[in-house]
Amino acid sequence: MGAIVDDLVIDLQRLGHCAGQAIPGDMLDFIDLGPNAVSVTAALLDRYRGQWPLDTALPLANVKLLAPIQRPRKNIFGIGLNYAEHVEESSRSLDTIDELPKQPVIFSKPPTTVIGPGEAIEHNEAITRQLDWEVELAVIMGRRASRMDEAQAMEYVFGYTIINDISARDNRRAGQWIYSKGQDTYAPLGPVIVTADEVVEPHNLNLGLKVNGVEKQNSNTCHLLFRIPALIADISAAITLEPGDIIATGTPSGVGAGRTPQEWLWPGDVVEAWVEGIGTLRNPVVAVGDEPRKGPGSITGDNNGSDRHA
Amino acid sequence: MGAIVDDLVIDLQRLGHCAGQAIPGDMLDFIDLGPNAVSVTAALLDRYRGQWPLDTALPLANVKLLAPIQRPRKNIFGIGLNYAEHVEESSRSLDTIDELPKQPVIFSKPPTTVIGPGEAIEHNEAITRQLDWEVELAVIMGRRASRMDEAQAMEYVFGYTIINDISARDNRRAGQWIYSKGQDTYAPLGPVIVTADEVVEPHNLNLGLKVNGVEKQNSNTCHLLFRIPALIADISAAITLEPGDIIATGTPSGVGAGRTPQEWLWPGDVVEAWVEGIGTLRNPVVAVGDEPRKGPGSITGDNNGSDRHA
Repeated sequence: MGAIVDDLVIDLQRLGHCAGQAIPGDMLDFIDLGPNAVSVTAALLDRYRGQWPLDTALPLANVKLLAPIQRPRKNIFGIGLNYAEHVEESSRSLDTIDELPKQPVIFSKPPTTVIGPGEAIEHNEAITRQLDWEVELAVIMGRRASRMDEAQAMEYVFGYTIINDISARDNRRAGQWIYSKGQDTYAPLGPVIVTADEVVEPHNLNLGLKVNGVEKQNSNTCHLLFRIPALIADISAAITLEPGDIIATGTPSGVGAGRTPQEWLWPGDVVEAWVEGIGTLRNPVVAVGDEPRKGPGSITGDNNGSDRHA
Repeated sequence: MGAIVDDLVIDLQRLGHCAGQAIPGDMLDFIDLGPNAVSVTAALLDRYRGQWPLDTALPLANVKLLAPIQRPRKNIFGIGLNYAEHVEESSRSLDTIDELPKQPVIFSKPPTTVIGPGEAIEHNEAITRQLDWEVELAVIMGRRASRMDEAQAMEYVFGYTIINDISARDNRRAGQWIYSKGQDTYAPLGPVIVTADEVVEPHNLNLGLKVNGVEKQNSNTCHLLFRIPALIADISAAITLEPGDIIATGTPSGVGAGRTPQEWLWPGDVVEAWVEGIGTLRNPVVAVGDEPRKGPGSITGDNNGSDRHA
């Protein structure tokens, strides 16, 4: 686990060792330590800034970033229909409700969906011919939250990252979305987590998505119908949220299903999802055959090394 | 972790120690060892049967059973509408499809839903007034399965248990079921796992459910629309199944929503879900207030000790 400072990645476990602080090497272990770990680590980074111990700093360009949380402890909670213009395009193209939802529409993606920056989104033509994109701001929970008031909810946020909520539109089953949104590699995540203390207003972030360099989505989180405190209060009213849990806050308009004519992802495409202040999450789409996988998320794209993955 | 032999629970870790075999104390660790662990353990049990080392055997009546998998590694996969008569009652009472599904209807329950035998199903009247029951045969995966053929699928099953797929019918959101089925305590699981080698035909098991001693459901797994190999092949075609993953195969007719008049669970009720050859999973329903929970699944029912929990 590293902290990005300017164009360097600082190995936090090693930096902690130099300073006599036991900083874990795993993101979930770090989140488990609570808000104090963030401030102690930030102070360490300030203290050593510009004079990094030799084995702690690497140029970011030399580092391959992985998903900031590679294996969530439970399913990712996705929020459907949380931007008005996406409610409209979805009702027109995907048979969803045509009025604004009165309560958050929640679905889930298994932990096996997660891939990191640069890793391949699998296109299995035997299963789908309607693979779609969805850029979203993802909230990372920092503390256990059960029946949380909106007023306290933001104190329970560890930070933010980007998720691309990949969806096989032709894989919905009797209205349920998990087979459509829950397939292996359908949750590109990253490139980094920005901790909550560094995000002044998560409800005023531009976000967008490009396919092969062409802009498809462009909006701002100010248009969220249910804002982050409302989402945390609503989910935690019934489902305990735990450190490291991920809430994908919903996508704005511009998905492939809602376009005229409809557009889908195909092998060879490259998808770039971006959120202001967090970065760009870039993933290739690759065809998969019928060979068994080695393991979830283990397929590597054709990263020929010409650029870094964040 | 223990094995039930007659009226005894055999502590497998301790028995393994006596025999120089390192048997893990945790169910998921045990499943990870693969099919060999089951046969080695069965042979050990045969060897020591009737002459148990002193600290390895306890009367079952003195043991409180926990959920056989207390914390699944990912969401539980639920299968909706997998018995014809339940498809009919659901379409009449819950606005679901009225024809038989052409593919399995999959939904998910977070790992935080799991409770064990005797633990309390939470009734939060601020959230639901339509709490319902669903007895189901649950399949426990034994090995990683990706794009599995039906012909091989059964070799990937570790065993079977009972799940009560508790559902707050008034908590569906724009057709999505996770908020209805995913609340804390909504997956009573147990009382035990019966390993696959001890289940001659999982597609010919009677199963049923009683509320306060009155029979509400009674059917047989021979009526499953999609059988276990088809479910494993279908899910694993897109979502990697991992050791310890749980598939809830669907419920037969007789749920509260489908009855005339409709019936719901209320605090003070006791629900008993049973499957032939596995046992009875008994859970009380208790009211919860607005106090924060100590942790998921940690609420204990009013188990006043008059009987054991399996």
